[in-house]
Amino acid sequence: MARIKAHEPVLLLTEDRKRYLIRPKPGGVWYSHQGHLKYDDLIGRPFGQVVTTHLGRKLLALQPTTADLIQHIKRATQIVYPKDAAHLVMQLDLWNGKRVIEAGSGSGGLTLAFARAVMPSGRVYSYEARPEHQRLAQRNIEQLGLKDYVEFKLRDIAEGFDENDVDAVFLDVREAAAFIPQVQAALSEGGMFASLQPTANQVSELTAALQKGDFVEIRVEEILLRAWKPVPGRLRPADRMIAHTGFLIFARKLNPEHRFFWMDKRERRRAAEFASRESEK
Amino acid sequence: MARIKAHEPVLLLTEDRKRYLIRPKPGGVWYSHQGHLKYDDLIGRPFGQVVTTHLGRKLLALQPTTADLIQHIKRATQIVYPKDAAHLVMQLDLWNGKRVIEAGSGSGGLTLAFARAVMPSGRVYSYEARPEHQRLAQRNIEQLGLKDYVEFKLRDIAEGFDENDVDAVFLDVREAAAFIPQVQAALSEGGMFASLQPTANQVSELTAALQKGDFVEIRVEEILLRAWKPVPGRLRPADRMIAHTGFLIFARKLNPEHRFFWMDKRERRRAAEFASRESEK
Amino acid sequence: MARIKAHEPVLLLTEDRKRYLIRPKPGGVWYSHQGHLKYDDLIGRPFGQVVTTHLGRKLLALQPTTADLIQHIKRATQIVYPKDAAHLVMQLDLWNGKRVIEAGSGSGGLTLAFARAVMPSGRVYSYEARPEHQRLAQRNIEQLGLKDYVEFKLRDIAEGFDENDVDAVFLDVREAAAFIPQVQAALSEGGMFASLQPTANQVSELTAALQKGDFVEIRVEEILLRAWKPVPGRLRPADRMIAHTGFLIFARKLNPEHRFFWMDKRERRRAAEFASRESEK
Amino acid sequence: MARIKAHEPVLLLTEDRKRYLIRPKPGGVWYSHQGHLKYDDLIGRPFGQVVTTHLGRKLLALQPTTADLIQHIKRATQIVYPKDAAHLVMQLDLWNGKRVIEAGSGSGGLTLAFARAVMPSGRVYSYEARPEHQRLAQRNIEQLGLKDYVEFKLRDIAEGFDENDVDAVFLDVREAAAFIPQVQAALSEGGMFASLQPTANQVSELTAALQKGDFVEIRVEEILLRAWKPVPGRLRPADRMIAHTGFLIFARKLNPEHRFFWMDKRERRRAAEFASRESEK
Repeated sequence: MARIKAHEPVLLLTEDRKRYLIRPKPGGVWYSHQGHLKYDDLIGRPFGQVVTTHLGRKLLALQPTTADLIQHIKRATQIVYPKDAAHLVMQLDLWNGKRVIEAGSGSGGLTLAFARAVMPSGRVYSYEARPEHQRLAQRNIEQLGLKDYVEFKLRDIAEGFDENDVDAVFLDVREAAAFIPQVQAALSEGGMFASLQPTANQVSELTAALQKGDFVEIRVEEILLRAWKPVPGRLRPADRMIAHTGFLIFARKLNPEHRFFWMDKRERRRAAEFASRESEK
Repeated sequence: MARIKAHEPVLLLTEDRKRYLIRPKPGGVWYSHQGHLKYDDLIGRPFGQVVTTHLGRKLLALQPTTADLIQHIKRATQIVYPKDAAHLVMQLDLWNGKRVIEAGSGSGGLTLAFARAVMPSGRVYSYEARPEHQRLAQRNIEQLGLKDYVEFKLRDIAEGFDENDVDAVFLDVREAAAFIPQVQAALSEGGMFASLQPTANQVSELTAALQKGDFVEIRVEEILLRAWKPVPGRLRPADRMIAHTGFLIFARKLNPEHRFFWMDKRERRRAAEFASRESEK
Repeated sequence: MARIKAHEPVLLLTEDRKRYLIRPKPGGVWYSHQGHLKYDDLIGRPFGQVVTTHLGRKLLALQPTTADLIQHIKRATQIVYPKDAAHLVMQLDLWNGKRVIEAGSGSGGLTLAFARAVMPSGRVYSYEARPEHQRLAQRNIEQLGLKDYVEFKLRDIAEGFDENDVDAVFLDVREAAAFIPQVQAALSEGGMFASLQPTANQVSELTAALQKGDFVEIRVEEILLRAWKPVPGRLRPADRMIAHTGFLIFARKLNPEHRFFWMDKRERRRAAEFASRESEK
Repeated sequence: MARIKAHEPVLLLTEDRKRYLIRPKPGGVWYSHQGHLKYDDLIGRPFGQVVTTHLGRKLLALQPTTADLIQHIKRATQIVYPKDAAHLVMQLDLWNGKRVIEAGSGSGGLTLAFARAVMPSGRVYSYEARPEHQRLAQRNIEQLGLKDYVEFKLRDIAEGFDENDVDAVFLDVREAAAFIPQVQAALSEGGMFASLQPTANQVSELTAALQKGDFVEIRVEEILLRAWKPVPGRLRPADRMIAHTGFLIFARKLNPEHRFFWMDKRERRRAAEFASRESEK
């Protein structure tokens, strides 16, 4: 049975449904609206138990999951939702040993999901232009014991990436279309690209930039999560859902001559027509 | 740049949009409708290149992703789609070092996704009652070089699991509700349970069984993937989509007295009414 | 240009985004948090203009649409959302001259949508068991000038309907499955049945009851409305949406021998197997 | 019980799930792959009965619904799906007496839905630039007995509409954004505008054009229909669904000064900032 360790993250649930992510330091105290809690009363106990503050408020101490961490780390930027993070890890094919670039670091939420996916042999190269964001992301990653798997770089990515032949690149930046040459230079042949963009206009620009570069299998996808109320005799979807977090754009770096292998009949006919018009000029 | 190795999986794309997953053996030949291809013409070349069969048909040789493998391994059973596999890995919190039980093994598609998530320190304990399915899953896992991370067990799970204190259990079996006591015995305190069920009726039965057991935070979710046509000037969703693969049911093993920490106001009022009625009896 | 008439509904929009449905009576006053408004200052003016209360608050006076009315009439029951009402009117094939039964009347929201669809030659027969609901629905319908097209009946529908050979029946009652014989007796050959049910369990019960009766083309559908933020340069879906209002169940009354005309291959194979097993008994 | 009349539409269902829309002429014969059927064997019989061709093939004769007609009339253009037609009728607030312009006529599918909604006192003004489309739409509307409710006009709508003060305008044309001044001239104060556009790029252009005109409450919506398999003990969504038919854009013609009544806090803050910047110039 897993036990609470000093300096490692604990998720505290309150009776009024709030969630706090803490890291107990020996001898320290957690101060909150719920009352005081001595960290030494927490350290060494098994996860999954209830502790009580000096005001008598009950707290349930849980081991946070990656999804919990993404949602509850200290943050200054919008998070990538766990549903999207999961899809990105799968589609970028991130697992032990893979080398992946992300830009920007944001608050480190996606960084931690990527780090846990590629650890222990892989690496995340996390680029960020704003020092205060980098510091926050760095601290979050250190506190989770993941710093051996992440290299942080303070850099405007317009200058390019240090790495090359990486397995995957993820861009969570506003003008992603502008950095496709840099992405292409860093990726291995067959390497995976992804980006998350909130608006349809950005998707148009980014897919246009990818089509001009050495990319094939360009895909645009949305992941929708619909929750149900788990009441056995009255089973029904929840009343409301999140309708949009972002569009996920994927592409694979490959000689564009190979684009043909992904085309359906209609796309091929168009490509053939285009080629014959070009040759007539 | 990654190169094709003997015995390791290669994804061949044909010009007519078919995909074949092969494992080149030195000295061997791949026979197909596309013509013959000597494996020695493949081994040692970089991925992402085009090779030609004796009939002159072009094939693009790619390194398959986990998502490719899930969809293209030899199989006798229905697959768990990559969109669902990704969500399961995230919500079951599977990463390096985690120990997870799955039942049944099926054709090994989810097994491989789980193995890659928990490798190298974690383990997948994969239970299956039908010998022919186990053999297929086992062969698929071996061919992918993942056998060190998976223990296969030929067993009717009604007899229970060998492991205990595991981090996660996933059930992909028809009568999942019947095996909740066995799941509970195997899971650690705070451990994660998940199941995939195609029908609403099964969801009702399973959530009822979970509510009777030591489980909290019971959730039912659907993941919908909506693809868009990546045409920059005429951006629009694809005409059709997969509307249903299955309902994903999640729960966390915890003392049910802690259920209170997840309840909203309405659920608490109901629980209080129920308790007061019970006490009046 | 349409002008505001005495006793006819007007939708008032406030500057803080509230909406009020009123019916101006000559000589009367509208009292509200926004201040007083003399109805005579409203009557006779064109719709689409701004009026001011004695507190100087601005109000925009609009002609309410059917969708506005459904959402803003006085009500004691849950409304049928306009998206579902629209689909029901289309699929029940309601237009001028059609005769339709609904049960219960609720607050009259769907009644008014049905009445406007079948007027002037058609009729809505609206059954309700609770007198206070009937009174509310009746008042709402009268105030909208639709009473010539609706017959209200205070009745437990277990006793059956007065009409027969009607074109359509809609049931918005909890135990809809129990009343299928009564529905069948009232419907014409080829007539349309529909119901709205919130839970999957109710859908199971209702479809089972329909299959035992003289019904074919049984369908279960959900209508999802996803709104977008209409910002031209930053086009994106709204952040949240309504994920569930209810399941819509449809069926057509027809000799069940004609069920065959709707079956696909798989359903036919099953039906044939079933028939051959039956004949062997 | 409704009976089949000469010259009125009948929907024939075949045993192999095909559907034919016919209009029986006295003394005539229907020739098809199913065999010959004398119309006189059909005329006068009740709907919902089975008839037999000279080859012994069974046909079920049904009264077509509006949704059936939309999908089965002879057509040269893409149809507006019943799910979208229903939402348009509701949101354009079309019912007895309303006057609505549509452009183009297409094959008359939406024309018939609009005509049945506004009949008998209302009118549909249906504009079309291509004579062959107009002829087809006209024939379809005549055959359904709806010609008294529709005025067809052969016209490039760039020249404007003949009507003014109409209740609603619907544009199903490619460059809808170009015709907003014409729409505005035709609409009454408070009148409703709608358009269906397949791509996000078109939505951007159209909403920009509406914002420049006298329009408020601009909305962009998608209607998704998810069907379920109606199997009571194994209730589940259908495997596939239509993921996209088009984006529906709505707006209300009103003095744009009244835009304020629809703005939320964020939109108002932006508008105020914009106004203060403008005044500083």
